[in-house]
Amino acid sequence: MKDRYVIGIDLGGTKISGAVANFKGDIISQYTLPTKAEEGEKAVLERIIKVVEKVINESNVDKEKIVSIGIGSPGPLDAKEGKIITTANLPFKDFNIVNPLVEQFHIPAYLDNDANVAAIGEYIFGAGKGTNNMIFITVSTGIGGGAILNGKIYRGNTYNALEIGHMTLDEKGPRCNCGNYGCAEALASGTAIGKIATEQVKKGFKSSLGNYDQITSYEVFKEAEKGDILAKDVLYKALNYLGICVANMITSFDPELVIIGGGVSKGGSIVFEKVKEVVKTRCLKAMWESTKIVPAALGTDAGVKGAIALAIMESK
Amino acid sequence: MKDRYVIGIDLGGTKISGAVANFKGDIISQYTLPTKAEEGEKAVLERIIKVVEKVINESNVDKEKIVSIGIGSPGPLDAKEGKIITTANLPFKDFNIVNPLVEQFHIPAYLDNDANVAAIGEYIFGAGKGTNNMIFITVSTGIGGGAILNGKIYRGNTYNALEIGHMTLDEKGPRCNCGNYGCAEALASGTAIGKIATEQVKKGFKSSLGNYDQITSYEVFKEAEKGDILAKDVLYKALNYLGICVANMITSFDPELVIIGGGVSKGGSIVFEKVKEVVKTRCLKAMWESTKIVPAALGTDAGVKGAIALAIMESK
Repeated sequence: MKDRYVIGIDLGGTKISGAVANFKGDIISQYTLPTKAEEGEKAVLERIIKVVEKVINESNVDKEKIVSIGIGSPGPLDAKEGKIITTANLPFKDFNIVNPLVEQFHIPAYLDNDANVAAIGEYIFGAGKGTNNMIFITVSTGIGGGAILNGKIYRGNTYNALEIGHMTLDEKGPRCNCGNYGCAEALASGTAIGKIATEQVKKGFKSSLGNYDQITSYEVFKEAEKGDILAKDVLYKALNYLGICVANMITSFDPELVIIGGGVSKGGSIVFEKVKEVVKTRCLKAMWESTKIVPAALGTDAGVKGAIALAIMESK
Repeated sequence: MKDRYVIGIDLGGTKISGAVANFKGDIISQYTLPTKAEEGEKAVLERIIKVVEKVINESNVDKEKIVSIGIGSPGPLDAKEGKIITTANLPFKDFNIVNPLVEQFHIPAYLDNDANVAAIGEYIFGAGKGTNNMIFITVSTGIGGGAILNGKIYRGNTYNALEIGHMTLDEKGPRCNCGNYGCAEALASGTAIGKIATEQVKKGFKSSLGNYDQITSYEVFKEAEKGDILAKDVLYKALNYLGICVANMITSFDPELVIIGGGVSKGGSIVFEKVKEVVKTRCLKAMWESTKIVPAALGTDAGVKGAIALAIMESK
């Protein structure tokens, strides 16, 4: 692997970030452009190509030594075909993003969704290094997941495996964006925490949360820490459901490690203590004893690092 | 694979059944002895050996051509070590069942739990033939499962993967034997159906179920079919939870096929219609559209056939 390099591209609704890295994950060059999704498919594709050109040039790496390109994108997408099916914040509809990159740069390119890319990133560079079976769960505006099973990313039949935000945890729970009721995402995501708190305040429950125009999960965490009863109640209920979600994942996959990332995981020890407590109550002993639950290790560059890891995994 | 044979052993609480078969699964010879678990580890082991000797002799197959032995047993067990940890209806405690067979017959032997063995059986000989990712769920006294992922049995870190009977489906649901509340097994197993119906009758609800001394799931199915309102209510609630369990499996594993076996699956179209209806409501469209849900294809010989399939899978 000496003297071989990859390119990682993190395709997001606000920015396109790319980097050239070696197989240890050391970034040689990095460049970022705004996405400007409103300009449409062609303009965004051109900006992606510009980012790739720029990082290749600035890296001073011989292009022949760059063996693959990894692209992380919001989904749903078809990883096998390299096609983005649709996303909320990007212009692409049934758009093959891999082919134009291969044509332009003559380097094999691989696409996968955000959660899988983050899982691969943690597996190769982060908290999952050295494991064989691990689950990654991201909890922010939504809830998503990825699984490394027997040392490989597990994608499932339609590339939707680990869509765990849509696991039903309360059959009569709140309606989810997907149309179902009581999904993990409608009970325990950052969006859900903010929404439930707002509803409770509107109902007239006394709370320091009433001082905010718009209540987000960040405010709920902040006021819960200060001791506000409503904030604590909303938070504990959400974290209880997150714990059940993690417990059900452990019961199903029997992994050695569960990594929790995303905005909500940054709530720190309150999150991990509650999740571990629920898992201990709800999983068989052999399983909770043998499964570590830890925060994601990759920080702000997780998207690009994950895309680099995807490129490395696919070129092995 | 021509002219190569395997032995399959189905180790149960009431009987030990063994067979010699070719790689197509055709049984050449079969023999069954009562388990007589009360006689202890040594006596049961001797009977297992006797079954194996008998099927080898009666098969008229050259022993050199028998390449492996597969053993299916209730768990929990350590498939890697070949050790039964403990089971409700067998005398073995931390007992290595594989080593004495290897020593006696000089044939490699492999152990796995009932649900995994049934999954492998369906994958190689039954409803799962030709698939790549499939989930097997057995619903009888308990609920268990097994997964074939990317063409291989997925066992997890502690060989407990797919312990889906202990997935939490209702955080405030009835207490399960495992100590947790609202497990799938406590809501949707055959045992649960009988128990919930009995409780309702004891509470004084009018029902033709009141005519039975002991209400089992069989009676609930029978009276529901005749139109008894309580029986129908109990059954639909249980099947709703079974549907949620299947939906959560599809959301997690994104399989191409879910096979449902065990006593409750023999309830027929009422079971499969209800499960499919719930899955359609609770899974993302791309996933329910692409996942078939079918009954297990292997019948009374499922245990032996599964053990044969395990032996074949391990010797490939």
